Amino acid sequence: MHTDHVKDCMSPKITGELLRQLRQAMRNCKYFSEPIQAYIVPSGDAHQSEYIAPCDCRREFICGFNGSAGTAIVTEQHAAMWTDGRYFLQASQQMDNNWTLMKMGLKETPSQEDWLISILPENSRVGVDPWIIAADQWKNMSRALTSAGHSLVAVQDNLIDAVWTDRPERPSTQLRTLGLEYTGISWQDKITALRTKMTERKLTWFVATALDEIAWLFNLRGADIEYNPVFFAYTIVGMNTIRLFVDLKRLSDPALRDHLQLDSPSKPELSIQTFPYESVYTELQAICAALGPKDKVWICDKASCALTQVIPKTHRSPIPYTPLCLAKAVKNATEIQGMKMAHIKDAVALCELFAWLEKEIPNGTVTEISAADKAEELRSQQKEFVGLSFPTISSVGPNGAIIHYRPLPETNRTLTMNEVYLIDSGAQYVDGTTDVTRTMHFGTPSAFEKECFTYVLKGHIAVSAAIFPNGTKGHLLDSFARAALWESGLDYLHGTGHGVGCFLNVHEGPCGISYKTFADEPLEAGMIVSDEPGYYEDGSFGIRIENVVLVVPAKPKYNYRNRGSLTFEPLTLVPIQVRMMNTELLTQKELDWVNEYHRKCREVVGAELERQGRKEALEWLIRETQPII
Amino acid sequence: MHTDHVKDCMSPKITGELLRQLRQAMRNCKYFSEPIQAYIVPSGDAHQSEYIAPCDCRREFICGFNGSAGTAIVTEQHAAMWTDGRYFLQASQQMDNNWTLMKMGLKETPSQEDWLISILPENSRVGVDPWIIAADQWKNMSRALTSAGHSLVAVQDNLIDAVWTDRPERPSTQLRTLGLEYTGISWQDKITALRTKMTERKLTWFVATALDEIAWLFNLRGADIEYNPVFFAYTIVGMNTIRLFVDLKRLSDPALRDHLQLDSPSKPELSIQTFPYESVYTELQAICAALGPKDKVWICDKASCALTQVIPKTHRSPIPYTPLCLAKAVKNATEIQGMKMAHIKDAVALCELFAWLEKEIPNGTVTEISAADKAEELRSQQKEFVGLSFPTISSVGPNGAIIHYRPLPETNRTLTMNEVYLIDSGAQYVDGTTDVTRTMHFGTPSAFEKECFTYVLKGHIAVSAAIFPNGTKGHLLDSFARAALWESGLDYLHGTGHGVGCFLNVHEGPCGISYKTFADEPLEAGMIVSDEPGYYEDGSFGIRIENVVLVVPAKPKYNYRNRGSLTFEPLTLVPIQVRMMNTELLTQKELDWVNEYHRKCREVVGAELERQGRKEALEWLIRETQPII
Repeated sequence: MHTDHVKDCMSPKITGELLRQLRQAMRNCKYFSEPIQAYIVPSGDAHQSEYIAPCDCRREFICGFNGSAGTAIVTEQHAAMWTDGRYFLQASQQMDNNWTLMKMGLKETPSQEDWLISILPENSRVGVDPWIIAADQWKNMSRALTSAGHSLVAVQDNLIDAVWTDRPERPSTQLRTLGLEYTGISWQDKITALRTKMTERKLTWFVATALDEIAWLFNLRGADIEYNPVFFAYTIVGMNTIRLFVDLKRLSDPALRDHLQLDSPSKPELSIQTFPYESVYTELQAICAALGPKDKVWICDKASCALTQVIPKTHRSPIPYTPLCLAKAVKNATEIQGMKMAHIKDAVALCELFAWLEKEIPNGTVTEISAADKAEELRSQQKEFVGLSFPTISSVGPNGAIIHYRPLPETNRTLTMNEVYLIDSGAQYVDGTTDVTRTMHFGTPSAFEKECFTYVLKGHIAVSAAIFPNGTKGHLLDSFARAALWESGLDYLHGTGHGVGCFLNVHEGPCGISYKTFADEPLEAGMIVSDEPGYYEDGSFGIRIENVVLVVPAKPKYNYRNRGSLTFEPLTLVPIQVRMMNTELLTQKELDWVNEYHRKCREVVGAELERQGRKEALEWLIRETQPII
Repeated sequence: MHTDHVKDCMSPKITGELLRQLRQAMRNCKYFSEPIQAYIVPSGDAHQSEYIAPCDCRREFICGFNGSAGTAIVTEQHAAMWTDGRYFLQASQQMDNNWTLMKMGLKETPSQEDWLISILPENSRVGVDPWIIAADQWKNMSRALTSAGHSLVAVQDNLIDAVWTDRPERPSTQLRTLGLEYTGISWQDKITALRTKMTERKLTWFVATALDEIAWLFNLRGADIEYNPVFFAYTIVGMNTIRLFVDLKRLSDPALRDHLQLDSPSKPELSIQTFPYESVYTELQAICAALGPKDKVWICDKASCALTQVIPKTHRSPIPYTPLCLAKAVKNATEIQGMKMAHIKDAVALCELFAWLEKEIPNGTVTEISAADKAEELRSQQKEFVGLSFPTISSVGPNGAIIHYRPLPETNRTLTMNEVYLIDSGAQYVDGTTDVTRTMHFGTPSAFEKECFTYVLKGHIAVSAAIFPNGTKGHLLDSFARAALWESGLDYLHGTGHGVGCFLNVHEGPCGISYKTFADEPLEAGMIVSDEPGYYEDGSFGIRIENVVLVVPAKPKYNYRNRGSLTFEPLTLVPIQVRMMNTELLTQKELDWVNEYHRKCREVVGAELERQGRKEALEWLIRETQPII
């Protein structure tokens, strides 16, 4: 859990003039044969990335809200923006009165389709950029509008770009190659495995559009998008050809050319042809023009509408998750080992941070921002640190209730002995990605704060210690995280966990733990997800306890129908503050879990702190991991 | 949970000759322009009923399997039948070697679409009767087949009927009218409420095809389908017209004519026009021919493909659940009171049964069949008894592991002091419908039987005592029922609960508790569902503990965002056998729940047993509800 890059402050963006210009463009027949009555601005880029480069922040540009999820729709009379419970507060602060905030998940909030239908005049035309709307979203929206007598129109020129005079350029950072010691498997073997899957499904082509899948496939990393080590590219794989679409200037580095065997491919079918990034559309058109009657092209139904519609419907084989997405989610032994190492280094940095905070807070000199900076500084001292995996959420008291808060100069609070402190942070190391949340009190927490923390902890443990059959989907575990909160009439309005990449995106599919039953794939040994229930008391405090956990086989007493069982092993090894617990509310089993978790933190992270000679942090760790008796 | 009417024994039906005739019909151009290569036989009738009349048991006729859920597909070379985990054992026993059993829910089992695509020759035509396939199923199947180069063909003449020489006639039983003392709301008010919903959604017509919705709407009951008090009919409601399609011979009874105000309607818009059952197709055609450009027709997407396709697509407004389905699910105060009364009477009968079994079993004269007959006899002594709500599952030892078992002469086991006895039974009373499962041992259960029973009980309690926010969908509660079993590596392959009608179908939508995330509606106060986890040890025993429970408001300590909370109140009040429990495995909270439940059984059912002067049963009840200390 975490916010996104924030360039503006938490005061609302003034959008009156921008909206006037956009509405003018909506009537301007330079862009289409007939004016449009509404324009949809999704939050994604052409790769349906969750995190996006500055040049792609169009929804933020038009409405001011800069959270990771949200869709803006502008009509001649109205402007509305849909986002989920994590962002209600933030969005209401960042948008001016021209905008209506649509709170998704609340009963009274209309869907985008229903809202459009309720306000549009008859036979309206609703425009959207086909590159930044996913094919499945296009289909649903188009169907709903058509059934109400309207139509969804692909507008080739992006109308936000038309009014965005100082739009930044698309980044093109240096690419980094990863050897087998990090990836465990060569890109050539990944291509071969992909082709095996294609043969099984009788598919002749596969189109990859998700940036993390392309980075994973070629064992390459970039820095085009902040926090996500990816680079702008497309890939099309045939049974005898591999086409990589990327800014060709990036391919001059000899080590990179060697890694990709660009100049001397080992086998002809493993030879990579490179093309400019922009030519993917015309190349895919050419491929489709030459398709045989039985040829099928595999493409994710979350790929852009523009690229999907190049493939004739009869040749299209859409899937909710690509084979790369599934293969990437199940980490191999090398990746698991790397993730473990990364989490130990990360724990070292956090133990140091917390020891430092304990010492400094009484002086009244530590703020949300300086604590976040300190965390980054300490992480950067660890081996193979690359950068943060998302902007640190460092929040004191009421700011903690803004689920995706990020401290800004004008919101920056000082850490004190009187308020709850929540820090959700993580880093990219060459061997792995981390994401951890701890909630602490450096004085005496109130009984209510302790009570809520303890319910959240009970939920965290219920998921982490759950044993469940092979084949179980993550959404079936979500209620375990909420049961203790529900029993007291409490809840939190976000999912419980997301997939985590290995030196890749901190959010990845296709597995997760959420009450939203997206078509998630069953959990499998080797998958890595977060476990992060929370509780947020608006205007007062926020609580979240987050570990990254690895799915591992479990060996319960019985083995019904030989299905086998699974459970989780925490990779995150940072103490959970006992001071925040009301231990009387914990069962013996829960107390045993906490004690065993702390024993492991002490053993594993303690050894590394010792090795690195970080004495104060070691003392802090030993103090914080005393068994509860 | 329960089996369906069973006319044949558990030995397989010989189907070689039938399949030969069916395949001949598939090539016979009397039925279509070109032969078909596959024929799908769904299990439903033209109303997508779960329980069906003998004349509609086409899937059973062709393959022999008579469970409530299953689809048969016959191709030139193959015959396969898909069913779910409740029926794996039963289906394998009832089908001969001509048939392949497709076990749904197992990873290796192909979907019907994938299987057809894998075995059909190119450009195949797959036939189905459009009246007995739901519109949404047609759409999915058609899309999958088309994308693989095949086509789905509507075959107007049913090919099973063509080879079924002694097919029974469609029933037309006497109709029963229900007064306000049972329904709480007149059919006129139900029509008015429906029209209000239609106005809100700007819909001009509503087509009702589900038999229980039509029975509920008109406060009428029939007996056309065994166990389900419904009658064959369709209804089309406009803003000023009500059309009822039913065998007109049924409308001669003066009380019925008076109830429906057929001869003297109070208001013109509440005047019911009656038409023959078969004329629904042509009447709907006539209505659709006269639709204005903005007119919309509301129809459930589970209605038959035949009827749905009469409505031009631009005028069609398909919904997953009709407003009648939703209104029917939330019981009013009169219905809740009726359901409570019905459950008390039902508990009286079961207490008598168990007292009698305890006395008779040592004599070795009680069998599965005679115990089921005794249960029916005792229920029939209760006021306003109409019949059973499903065939009694009365099963001893290994038969209990057949989840939808029904005792037959050739499988009939004697109840002994050495085996577990499972009885799942229920009745229709004029004031309500019941469905209860108890698992008992009349001697000394093994440690393993007790252990499994106790895990199932823990799951039952976890659901029954759960507190959850308003707006929670039932599928989010399913894992609560399994957690204790999962922890020991055990599970059960069926859902945890289904909606229960009020003197209506024992299974009804749109709510339920299942790991299958069908688009269920959120639970609301007034809804009634079953809570029935189980465990089945093949070849040895079956355990299930089932109560019918009412959704009621809960008042936990806090009230997050004023959402309010819900929990369940058991309507079923029959002791859960303490002898089967390993009480050491129960937490104090679970023990308290059992004791409080038993206290309530004693208080409420005890008073009624006393009133009815059923002394032995009262003694049994008092003995069985002693607090566990």
